Amino acid sequence: MFDSDIKKSDIFEKFEKVGQRAEAVISLGKLPFGMTFDEILSPTRALVDGREVILAGTNNYLGLTFSEAVKSAAVDAVIRQGTATTGSRLANGTFREHVELEEDLKAFFGAQSAIVFTTGYQANLAAISTLAGRGDHLLIDADSHACIYDGCRLSDAETIRFRHNSPEDLAKRLARLPDEGARLVVVEGLYSMLGDVAPIDEFVAVAHEHGAYLYVDEAHSVGCYGDRGRGLAQALGVLDKVDFLSGTFSKSFASIGGFCVSRHPGLELMRLVSRPYLFTASGSPSNVAAARAAMGEMMKGPDLSRQLMARAHQLHAGLVEAGFVPASPPGPIIAIPRPDELTAVKEWNQLLEAGIYVNLAVPPATPHAKSLLRLSVSAAHSEAEIASIIAAFRTLI
Amino acid sequence: MFDSDIKKSDIFEKFEKVGQRAEAVISLGKLPFGMTFDEILSPTRALVDGREVILAGTNNYLGLTFSEAVKSAAVDAVIRQGTATTGSRLANGTFREHVELEEDLKAFFGAQSAIVFTTGYQANLAAISTLAGRGDHLLIDADSHACIYDGCRLSDAETIRFRHNSPEDLAKRLARLPDEGARLVVVEGLYSMLGDVAPIDEFVAVAHEHGAYLYVDEAHSVGCYGDRGRGLAQALGVLDKVDFLSGTFSKSFASIGGFCVSRHPGLELMRLVSRPYLFTASGSPSNVAAARAAMGEMMKGPDLSRQLMARAHQLHAGLVEAGFVPASPPGPIIAIPRPDELTAVKEWNQLLEAGIYVNLAVPPATPHAKSLLRLSVSAAHSEAEIASIIAAFRTLI
Repeated sequence: MFDSDIKKSDIFEKFEKVGQRAEAVISLGKLPFGMTFDEILSPTRALVDGREVILAGTNNYLGLTFSEAVKSAAVDAVIRQGTATTGSRLANGTFREHVELEEDLKAFFGAQSAIVFTTGYQANLAAISTLAGRGDHLLIDADSHACIYDGCRLSDAETIRFRHNSPEDLAKRLARLPDEGARLVVVEGLYSMLGDVAPIDEFVAVAHEHGAYLYVDEAHSVGCYGDRGRGLAQALGVLDKVDFLSGTFSKSFASIGGFCVSRHPGLELMRLVSRPYLFTASGSPSNVAAARAAMGEMMKGPDLSRQLMARAHQLHAGLVEAGFVPASPPGPIIAIPRPDELTAVKEWNQLLEAGIYVNLAVPPATPHAKSLLRLSVSAAHSEAEIASIIAAFRTLI
Repeated sequence: MFDSDIKKSDIFEKFEKVGQRAEAVISLGKLPFGMTFDEILSPTRALVDGREVILAGTNNYLGLTFSEAVKSAAVDAVIRQGTATTGSRLANGTFREHVELEEDLKAFFGAQSAIVFTTGYQANLAAISTLAGRGDHLLIDADSHACIYDGCRLSDAETIRFRHNSPEDLAKRLARLPDEGARLVVVEGLYSMLGDVAPIDEFVAVAHEHGAYLYVDEAHSVGCYGDRGRGLAQALGVLDKVDFLSGTFSKSFASIGGFCVSRHPGLELMRLVSRPYLFTASGSPSNVAAARAAMGEMMKGPDLSRQLMARAHQLHAGLVEAGFVPASPPGPIIAIPRPDELTAVKEWNQLLEAGIYVNLAVPPATPHAKSLLRLSVSAAHSEAEIASIIAAFRTLI
């Protein structure tokens, strides 16, 4: 008898190893990946298994997710415009507020064009895959985020990696390219795993010297660096020279979505051809309203980013004093490399037991196959909360 | 002198043709792509250029975007949990409500596993690119949505297209495959452009006879078909035989996001390896709450989908009586093929002038290079609104 539901080959077999690895990690305590937060109490506090923990592993850099201004904008949008657009930007999904958010972004960054996307992942996916086409060259930092790699994969251009944060290596590779085709260099501002920043000014110089466009993903750095949180390119004085600047609403903007702005008006034409932009429903009214309100908070002044950086320095100094060696100078992301994965997993559990949630980051998600305890700082952290985080780390040594 | 900002090649040149085409369309009236809605008044009404129009081109099938239950769930989530998660599901972005939404989906579809994604686009991108890996074969309907094609492109599997809605052609192509590797067949339930439905029961039989898994994207059909809106597979009596069922929250669920459910528990392991799932922030609390509340409304009974189908029959019959030839039998999507793009654009403008917004769909976004006026029906449409839509179409002939 032929069983009509016997598969030729088990499609799940490919996940076996990762499943076994997860089992091994669970045997050491709680699974650090996809842990459930039972209740979120504030930007810095949550309930886990009935206990209150301090959140030291989010991307809530400005702590605006519970801001009254941001929340009330989101609530108002739900009430006035409903819970969804139910359509793509090209069809029925362009509400007045999507356009206004794009105008806000143009004004914020002094850009000629701005496009808003439904997620930050789709912003990079759309812009990179569409801007660089057949015959073009994409030159990307080797430590680029997965969505940049996925954008390259969706593009018809040839992708070339250069050494992380090395304008010299980029220059060498650009010099070797044929004259034909456009050149797009992609770097990030603040790198999410190790918390190191890019020399964007040097990348601008090298890219433009070799006739290339420069694309900077400032997902983690907007809100944290620069005047009014305009990001690292602004802080380094080269915002007007960056060709494309992308970002996300899911971190400092306390929402969900992403954007790409440009000093070139031509970016606008991408709307008519970019698949990850065209073939997805537009951001919900509440998400759009929250992002706009958060940008409004940033525009009010430097208090939030100053508060964030003060806490970052406090945490960095405290961890160094406790004997840890952060991967980078003080900043919103503080990564503590651990000797091996087993140690990192055990310490992650100890910290959670002590009431501190940090991110565990292990290969292949990390550069140089490092195992990291990744901490992030929020402007909403109190000095006392930072002190508690440091105290919990002290117990590890 | 070397001008440091002269590019080797203009990166925007590739958009020139599409820009010219847009200019040509604008010369005929308003640009039908990305039109701005100044205010959304209800699921079926909006203000455009100061005039009220009837919305007959959304995907608001159940009209739940302004449902009091859905709106108040979204508002409550903003107030209690804030405006964003600021992290991926794997890091700090798994709130209790994400897990509960996944539990709700399992119960709704009688599935063993369920994963929620931040957009519907990313649901298909993630599931298809991850389930089918190197050495596997993806067999996709030729008329598949762009996000299915993009999922295939991100996958390491070999992709084979079969004739639209043809189980016979699929069978032929499956029979030619080597024994090695897993086989994943991908079809949609209700196709978004022409409004035609797939013979999912036949696809189940053919796929399983040839040892393949069947993946059905029910983005447009969940909510509209089947008991309590469980979709076409359920309506055809094969829900328990479909291996993977994906969908979106941006249509009947009145939110933004997507999902994949499976009768196989192994789907869960995908969480640890799927890049479009791992490397994106999770859905905001308000989006998750809205989707859950909308599913709650569907569970209450068949009133909404019955109302939707009654209006669909009314509209279909009225258009036929007026002399139009819809591409498919009555359903939530009614596509009217036009003789050419120029006619379609002119008629789109005439309808808008008459206070009716429909979607204009032109090649390459349409099958067989058709130019279409695409209408969609909502359970929130009144009989009088449907009559107005028909009346406006009558003036075109």
